Amino acid sequence: MSEQRVGDVDEGTLLRRIFAVLEGSSAAIVGPGDDAAVLRTPGERVVATTDTLVHGPDFRLAWSSGTDLGFKAAAVNLADVAAMGARPTALLVALAVPESMPVSFVEDLAGGLRAACDELAPGCAIEGGDLTVSDTLTVAVTALGVLEGEPVRRSGARPGDVVAVAGALGAASRGLQILFGRFRDATGTPVPVDLDTLSAGERADLAAQLRPAPPISLGPIAAAAGATAMMDVSDGLVLDATRMADASGVTLELSSRLDADALTGGEDHALLATFAAADVPAGFRVIGAVRPRASASVTVGGVVPTGRGGWDPYRDWDAARG
Amino acid sequence: MSEQRVGDVDEGTLLRRIFAVLEGSSAAIVGPGDDAAVLRTPGERVVATTDTLVHGPDFRLAWSSGTDLGFKAAAVNLADVAAMGARPTALLVALAVPESMPVSFVEDLAGGLRAACDELAPGCAIEGGDLTVSDTLTVAVTALGVLEGEPVRRSGARPGDVVAVAGALGAASRGLQILFGRFRDATGTPVPVDLDTLSAGERADLAAQLRPAPPISLGPIAAAAGATAMMDVSDGLVLDATRMADASGVTLELSSRLDADALTGGEDHALLATFAAADVPAGFRVIGAVRPRASASVTVGGVVPTGRGGWDPYRDWDAARG
Repeated sequence: MSEQRVGDVDEGTLLRRIFAVLEGSSAAIVGPGDDAAVLRTPGERVVATTDTLVHGPDFRLAWSSGTDLGFKAAAVNLADVAAMGARPTALLVALAVPESMPVSFVEDLAGGLRAACDELAPGCAIEGGDLTVSDTLTVAVTALGVLEGEPVRRSGARPGDVVAVAGALGAASRGLQILFGRFRDATGTPVPVDLDTLSAGERADLAAQLRPAPPISLGPIAAAAGATAMMDVSDGLVLDATRMADASGVTLELSSRLDADALTGGEDHALLATFAAADVPAGFRVIGAVRPRASASVTVGGVVPTGRGGWDPYRDWDAARG
Repeated sequence: MSEQRVGDVDEGTLLRRIFAVLEGSSAAIVGPGDDAAVLRTPGERVVATTDTLVHGPDFRLAWSSGTDLGFKAAAVNLADVAAMGARPTALLVALAVPESMPVSFVEDLAGGLRAACDELAPGCAIEGGDLTVSDTLTVAVTALGVLEGEPVRRSGARPGDVVAVAGALGAASRGLQILFGRFRDATGTPVPVDLDTLSAGERADLAAQLRPAPPISLGPIAAAAGATAMMDVSDGLVLDATRMADASGVTLELSSRLDADALTGGEDHALLATFAAADVPAGFRVIGAVRPRASASVTVGGVVPTGRGGWDPYRDWDAARG
């Protein structure tokens, strides 16, 4: 029997298959199935963010399984909620799928979304969504969260604070280099990963790229500890630290011990935060200091970095998919 | 000078152009520009929904301007919030754009999103978003809203209630028929609309399709008046009334005076609601009655409708764009 494709089933059938994967996870007042979800927001505030993964600039199907893709689409959004000091409570998922995709891929994607919530942000669930066909596989996730105290913005870093980070720096970028460097054929087309050819460290880097696991629970912990500024490192430490420095009107002095991967590699979704020195909570490591604004936004070992690094899809995408 | 394209500018420049269009509209505690937005949610609940427009199954660029597309992407989501009895407060917009699109199109799209909020849901604003490149123009909108009282679900219709509707029924479908019937060339490729060839009524139908204006403000009014069930009519009255009847465990008897366009035409995003007969608020018109569950979910003039109508992109999309 040939594999069932999205184009072979009607929307209702596909939705039932997805709901079966998500069953029992909703914690909302009104969950999936009505015109809109209704969610609890203690404290009368909600944190909301959206981030999209698009086939081509953001992932290749030769390398990412449906589970990987769902997991990553959730993780990158959960990290943005955590970076405000909030606890993620709900995802809404707008999925646009080519008719040629296997139905099982869509089920795996839903499973990956659920797994990321269960592992990274217990209590968070997929509470709504939308399903349409498209020539381009696109996963647009909106994440919502709640705050115990005040939101932690990227603009609050104060001279005298320390700069600290929680989570990996550089691993996801090394994983991307492994994929592009070793798992394409002579024409440049992506080919499936052969894990047997990779060391344990390389496998970890690959996992960081394909299925990132940022320290979501440390976001609210950092907020409670008194973080003065926070953001997630999505585009590389130097680039994102520059954004924090500019928003805060300070200079961030980063340690000379950070290597090039840590400084410029994107997509780790580590949490970058500033604290009074005595306030740094467990799970964060100090990587620098906040100084009064000098000419440079960021220095590394006292030197102004030349390359900012970071992934700008407008600059870098070569229109390939695979 | 040739027109500037998305692929000609970096992400920061494009974001600045979009922010310029949205400037001054944010009412959030934290608006666009940080990792996530922070929104007020009086009553400790938030209503959340997401709906996507994809180039091909949902719109054609020969027919929809950027302004039209932004307006419609907002309107369809605002209608889902209103259909819960909620007042929309914020949109988050995940935009995936081909590099070949004019920058001015993206600005127009942002302007259309803003205009829909201003016209249909004053106080609602675009509070966050995401921008990526893609081969397929995709606008995924998430709408959030707040409730004064309890959410109005589609499952609360009670025998003895009347069935009422606010907003147009059938106009958007007639508009789609005009586009497909009269504004394609001999090969079936969409061509720009010549308004001079249309009657006033036809122009109104076209506007209903390209730039729908559902009665968003009547959602909270219906809730306050005691609506027992409510939903928006996105896929055609008979199909959506069937969903309401099945969710509520009742039969909806609809009037024989409804014409075929009203019964089967989709995309109007009218509000379908049930009320005790004395509670129907101004703006709603009675179109039927709720009866104890019989064998059929819906009857029209006492007859079980044969065609349910409604737009199922899985069934109908022919893979064309234009």
